[in-house]
Amino acid sequence: MKTSIITIGDEILRGETLDTNSDYLSKKLFEAGAELVTKLTVSDKANDIVDALNYCFEKSSLIITTGGLGPTTDDITKQTLADYFHTRLIFYPDVKKQIEELLKHRYKTLSEAHLSQAMLPEKCIILKNRLGTASGMFFQEKEKRLISLPGVPFEMKDIFENEVTPLLRSLIQKKILSLSIKTAGVAESVIAGQIQEIERSLPADFRLAYLPSIGEVKLRLTTTYSQQNQLLLNDLQQKISSVLGDMVYGYGDISLPEAIGQILIRKNLSLSIAESCTGGYVSHLITTVPGSSAYFKGSMVSYSNEIKINQLKVEKAVIEKHGAVSEQCAIQMATNIRKIFDTDIGLSITGIAGPGGATPDKPLGLVFICVANQEKSSVQKLIFDRGRMQNIQFFAVSALNILRKLIL
Amino acid sequence: MKTSIITIGDEILRGETLDTNSDYLSKKLFEAGAELVTKLTVSDKANDIVDALNYCFEKSSLIITTGGLGPTTDDITKQTLADYFHTRLIFYPDVKKQIEELLKHRYKTLSEAHLSQAMLPEKCIILKNRLGTASGMFFQEKEKRLISLPGVPFEMKDIFENEVTPLLRSLIQKKILSLSIKTAGVAESVIAGQIQEIERSLPADFRLAYLPSIGEVKLRLTTTYSQQNQLLLNDLQQKISSVLGDMVYGYGDISLPEAIGQILIRKNLSLSIAESCTGGYVSHLITTVPGSSAYFKGSMVSYSNEIKINQLKVEKAVIEKHGAVSEQCAIQMATNIRKIFDTDIGLSITGIAGPGGATPDKPLGLVFICVANQEKSSVQKLIFDRGRMQNIQFFAVSALNILRKLIL
Repeated sequence: MKTSIITIGDEILRGETLDTNSDYLSKKLFEAGAELVTKLTVSDKANDIVDALNYCFEKSSLIITTGGLGPTTDDITKQTLADYFHTRLIFYPDVKKQIEELLKHRYKTLSEAHLSQAMLPEKCIILKNRLGTASGMFFQEKEKRLISLPGVPFEMKDIFENEVTPLLRSLIQKKILSLSIKTAGVAESVIAGQIQEIERSLPADFRLAYLPSIGEVKLRLTTTYSQQNQLLLNDLQQKISSVLGDMVYGYGDISLPEAIGQILIRKNLSLSIAESCTGGYVSHLITTVPGSSAYFKGSMVSYSNEIKINQLKVEKAVIEKHGAVSEQCAIQMATNIRKIFDTDIGLSITGIAGPGGATPDKPLGLVFICVANQEKSSVQKLIFDRGRMQNIQFFAVSALNILRKLIL
Repeated sequence: MKTSIITIGDEILRGETLDTNSDYLSKKLFEAGAELVTKLTVSDKANDIVDALNYCFEKSSLIITTGGLGPTTDDITKQTLADYFHTRLIFYPDVKKQIEELLKHRYKTLSEAHLSQAMLPEKCIILKNRLGTASGMFFQEKEKRLISLPGVPFEMKDIFENEVTPLLRSLIQKKILSLSIKTAGVAESVIAGQIQEIERSLPADFRLAYLPSIGEVKLRLTTTYSQQNQLLLNDLQQKISSVLGDMVYGYGDISLPEAIGQILIRKNLSLSIAESCTGGYVSHLITTVPGSSAYFKGSMVSYSNEIKINQLKVEKAVIEKHGAVSEQCAIQMATNIRKIFDTDIGLSITGIAGPGGATPDKPLGLVFICVANQEKSSVQKLIFDRGRMQNIQFFAVSALNILRKLIL
């Protein structure tokens, strides 16, 4: 079913509020098998909203709107939609009761403004808002269908999960199968080269998308639902995975730090980290995972040479001879943090994030990453320069991925 | 000048790519004095793009598009715009030269695909892309003006800053005066209460917006340009700042870690950090600032009690008696990291980010933050629970803000 999203609100056009709703809805609609044809953001003016409705209904038979359902005078979505669908606002006693209960829970009492939230269009289905006062609405008039949701993200999401998802299931016949393969450490073009045979012989209604982010590429396979396609999809996943080998770190929604956590837990290994140029970011990524304290003991961010020498016990001579950004220093950092923090694995990162710090032989974006265990250490050199913040991110993801491949 | 944004790309409609560009552009256009009337996202189909152009030119005289400028066959923005503005693609030798230089820097050579990026519309002004191969373009035909930018965010932003900003200055007559006051550590409602008198007596064409993020609130004052309003704006900034006192950490685009960096440099103070539940995130924030190595010496992420005891020298008895999440432990962490890392200031954070780890007396979201210098230490207890990732962010921003206020 062709679908459009209309986001309503002056605050979004002024860049005061980040519109996270439409990204969420895009993902959810795709997963539900709806074909999103356009997204529009308009002001809180009735004629702008009506223009947007007309434009979108020319391109689609379902519109989802967010925003403009609050009790203040600038929230005009409800009245505008009632007019558009030739109905009027009436009082809904059930909605009033529910709002009262919600307010009681928050130690508040019903005001005039709250009461107006129980005035809703006569010809529509009410979509219950369990977390706020603005009900969702579903309008239908011949081939025109519209779902109106509040703009507050957590309210919108709750209504979507509980009320809209079943509704969409009844509206959308065509179901979608989807599968993600997550890779790290290789460029999109390299992956494309390796799986070009598979891609060329992709069945007609299968789609393969490359979704790159810094240091990672997610492959998304999608197709229409059938038992046959489900088998083909599983088969494709296996084929792609076997070609890409250890570039693949997981499937679905898993993150790289989660994949590492699973390996460390399975192998009963503990980890410590010595960071320099990444300034704590690698440790932060590792600790985004709930329960990471099971394997991550801690880290040392040695942002100065004194800390490297006095705390990490890197030999002064090594830094004087090779510099802090060197293979030798990276090895000592990883080897020593492992010993000092008494862990199975030590990971180190030392490099030049920029914008300052480059020398004639050491360019911006140069980084050494070392992984050490009791027996040996393994060091890698990379160069990547897209500005400080992106460099830090690339260094961190690369370090995690090098670690992952060595503990597999 | 009435303005629209058109974001072009199937990947955004499918929810595969987050559209961060249009939020950035909304902010920038508002600051430049353009009135954004609508935002649209469309697929990579020529007729959808043309429909969107027609819709937007009915509502505005300037359109900014992003996306669809890559060298692959699904990138059709360039040809579509050339057709729309009645011109043809021609070869630009200068653009080719620049692409070659860019590739040389990345150790790559010119391919057929890269070469096609030097084919650009004859009747347009080229907006130089210093970071990628897709040039921006400015078209003008009578009252219709269009700026086309690539979809890669860092390329788009660079072209916007360097090429589009001066262009907008010449296009937009009505100038906007805008000023941001950045605060941390207090809720929007508290600030609103404190400055309600000032807000009530705001001159008619002044607007005050509250832009909250986790642990911070940015106040944005805007008005139309005049000498009179410039004076009034400065006066308002002073008034608000004097009411809010040390809640204000800076003006304009400054970040909290930058504000701290400026104070540390001015007072010639060095900093070390002992993190527990924030897992390296505070150190990461501090090191987002270029040149932070001038004052930040390093940190210890003690994610386990052994590290706290063996490395940070927290007394075992303190942890046994009060727990790792306690005032006493926070004080020892800050005091000891300062001594061990030999810095003027020590900052510590220990708390429960969740989802696990709560006990009957220690709820999720409980955190102790301590700042120590040579003479004394000061510890604060906070509670904030909105889930692990938001808790980590809140703990980190709060720690930075407590540090800031103590070194002022």
